[in-house]
Amino acid sequence: MQILVAKSKERELILGVDLGGTKIATVVATAQGEILSRGYSPTLAQAGPDAVISSIFTTIEETVAQDKVELSQLLGIGIAAAGIIDGDNGKVVFSPNLPGWNEVPLRDAVEQRFGVPAYLGNDANLAALGEWCFGVEKKVANLIYITVSTGIGGGIIADGKLYTGACGTAGEVGHMTIDVNGPRCNCGNIGCWESLASGTALAREAVKQINQGAYTSIIEFVNGDVSRIDAKIVSLAARQGDKLAKELISHLGYYFGVGLANLVNIFNPELILIGGGLAKMGDLLLEPAINVVKERAFKTPLNSVEIKPALLGDDSGVLGAVALVLEHFGK
Amino acid sequence: MQILVAKSKERELILGVDLGGTKIATVVATAQGEILSRGYSPTLAQAGPDAVISSIFTTIEETVAQDKVELSQLLGIGIAAAGIIDGDNGKVVFSPNLPGWNEVPLRDAVEQRFGVPAYLGNDANLAALGEWCFGVEKKVANLIYITVSTGIGGGIIADGKLYTGACGTAGEVGHMTIDVNGPRCNCGNIGCWESLASGTALAREAVKQINQGAYTSIIEFVNGDVSRIDAKIVSLAARQGDKLAKELISHLGYYFGVGLANLVNIFNPELILIGGGLAKMGDLLLEPAINVVKERAFKTPLNSVEIKPALLGDDSGVLGAVALVLEHFGK
Repeated sequence: MQILVAKSKERELILGVDLGGTKIATVVATAQGEILSRGYSPTLAQAGPDAVISSIFTTIEETVAQDKVELSQLLGIGIAAAGIIDGDNGKVVFSPNLPGWNEVPLRDAVEQRFGVPAYLGNDANLAALGEWCFGVEKKVANLIYITVSTGIGGGIIADGKLYTGACGTAGEVGHMTIDVNGPRCNCGNIGCWESLASGTALAREAVKQINQGAYTSIIEFVNGDVSRIDAKIVSLAARQGDKLAKELISHLGYYFGVGLANLVNIFNPELILIGGGLAKMGDLLLEPAINVVKERAFKTPLNSVEIKPALLGDDSGVLGAVALVLEHFGK
Repeated sequence: MQILVAKSKERELILGVDLGGTKIATVVATAQGEILSRGYSPTLAQAGPDAVISSIFTTIEETVAQDKVELSQLLGIGIAAAGIIDGDNGKVVFSPNLPGWNEVPLRDAVEQRFGVPAYLGNDANLAALGEWCFGVEKKVANLIYITVSTGIGGGIIADGKLYTGACGTAGEVGHMTIDVNGPRCNCGNIGCWESLASGTALAREAVKQINQGAYTSIIEFVNGDVSRIDAKIVSLAARQGDKLAKELISHLGYYFGVGLANLVNIFNPELILIGGGLAKMGDLLLEPAINVVKERAFKTPLNSVEIKPALLGDDSGVLGAVALVLEHFGK
């Protein structure tokens, strides 16, 4: 503990923020990714950018106060945010789950408030970085992180470096078409991976089956209100043995595997890590998905890839934000 | 010229080989990618690896002799080969268009024969490197090269470096599923990009339409023998105004665009270059494809990408082989 305090005095602590559509999570962590304190608040996205930024400030202040950390001990503040992020200019360009966020200079707002260097990146990209820096036991050069919840996002580590593309939007793997004649996606496109293999897709298919008269206990979990069916409910029903729920998740796994096979062929990575809410389904989702990858991916890249649940759980993004700060300081 | 000779004496010349399923192309080039002499021979792939390797030797010898280059002037020999390549061990692991090639140590064979360091890579990967080193006028950090002929292959430059993945097979973009219920691909899979947007797909659709009684001049180009219809024939008919041929290419362009949009969303590259036989169709193929990309790709990466024909034409691969040698010498 003595060593830690000594380190802290040398600005070796980092504050990480994960801004999502429903919650703001913060941590104070060491350069080794050890979490010293945590903060949390609901995003209340409907209140708009100014109110959300206020909440971020308060959550940061509480997290810092909790562990009696002084701002002068912080090397920097890293922010992982959902949406299209312009990291170079520190702006949230657009975010489907944060209404009113258009070209919002979040990085500068945080930097000015706390007088500490701040850095901004896309949450799925940074989750990949977080897993790569603090999650994996054995370093690999090429890693794909996939988050599957209401949507599907991704982050790419290529040749030992976070790959973000020409303007920071790389990794939007959820919006690769896998069924050109498939359902309409939230992005407006047709047949995106996300439209077939996300939580939204699972809920939609469950409602469709129920409306067509399928026999299932899913409906009991929501007291007959189909509008309340989501991926969590279907997962719950499946765990209690509901046949339709299990079939729906297995079918979701099929589509999930089709997209994973694409990524194996395109990237030939050593590791694909699956995070996000649906990853909590475990083998119920991953087993059928991996079976499809075995059928569909080329043999050589298949033999060199491991596909498994993300290692940091819900902390991938916030620890990725920590890693982003370290990267900027060349650590 | 005097300078060139002086340079040559300092081992500044490079020999590049492009081994495809139908032809072997060789060049002697400077470190600036200037081609000094060329060689060419048919692959005669059916004769098997030993015979093909003999042909490569002869073609190299003729190319070197042509310009009175001595082997001692060569910095190295780069080889671009079609198929699954293990670059680290210098082996052709497997190649669909080179029967009998399984784990063939091509690099060592060339190195032993000529006593010059040799390097081996996948042809589409190296074509990306060739375009990036010697084709593009303004350097970009992220470039995707797509070759579309009987199949679809790809190469990736990520953050200013050729990306080949865990075991050298990255870039197999032709085998990403874009229509999960689509036609069977040559790879055995269903609905690969290649199965819908390659020359093979174009010929198959033409034959299908003709067998269903469509009115078209395509059949006249092959004297009524539908088995002789290929992408070149359909392209020829389209250029002479054949309505069906034009429609088929436009439809092919649609599928080609779906895959390109995926790559824009996944990679957010500055540049996508299109090479291979079908690239010679020019706007006939690229215009409908780019229109689909505009409809389907996310706005931010769309605004930062340029999609255009490859700049080195048929020399992308062979100059990529030259670039591979230079890369190994840190030049």
